Amino acid sequence: MNTEEVARKVVELTRKQAWHDALDLYDDDIVSVEASGMGGSPETRGKEGVRGKIDWWVNSMNVHSFDVQGPFVAHDRFVVLYDADVSDKKTNQRHKMSEVGVYTVKDGKIVREEFLPRVA
Amino acid sequence: MNTEEVARKVVELTRKQAWHDALDLYDDDIVSVEASGMGGSPETRGKEGVRGKIDWWVNSMNVHSFDVQGPFVAHDRFVVLYDADVSDKKTNQRHKMSEVGVYTVKDGKIVREEFLPRVA
Repeated sequence: MNTEEVARKVVELTRKQAWHDALDLYDDDIVSVEASGMGGSPETRGKEGVRGKIDWWVNSMNVHSFDVQGPFVAHDRFVVLYDADVSDKKTNQRHKMSEVGVYTVKDGKIVREEFLPRVA
Repeated sequence: MNTEEVARKVVELTRKQAWHDALDLYDDDIVSVEASGMGGSPETRGKEGVRGKIDWWVNSMNVHSFDVQGPFVAHDRFVVLYDADVSDKKTNQRHKMSEVGVYTVKDGKIVREEFLPRVA
């Protein structure tokens, strides 16, 4: 798949919140970078690491709405805009999230993703 | 300036369409990448190259509206979402543009920018 095809697939799957299906689009050596590391490193390496992040998200969050815009595509890069309204399952604390994912594609697989939160 | 400060300044200046003022935020060795090269290379190198792109834009386009969203910021990267409604001054052809800019900051200056159009 070329960059645009991978990008469209990410949008299709994240709109359905089919996170585990999206794992097929990742390279085994994916590097996944968050804005902050919640105490640890902001960087997760490898598909199993990304699977762990997905498991954490699915187990931790009640998702009230999840809006996906894009993709924006050029060369080996694409961007998707995510707006979510979620509650933490443990604390019941509800908050809105707005961030972009910046993805890099190589040989038809996502090799890097970076998440950048919207600055208020 | 850190990444967030540069990002906020880009948003402030592009909202005013103060393109030439924004040049101060660029590193001398800036690499600016468009989705397509309009016949040439999609890559422009150097601040004077970027100034040329700005001059072309200002001379070529009547801007009916220019909406700026963001910034989205993490580490050395930020993203800004642009939605424009413009007419070509020569042909009078009017079209809407939606794209993101993905910017990389080093030592307080923008060293790379990539523009990714929204895929319909």
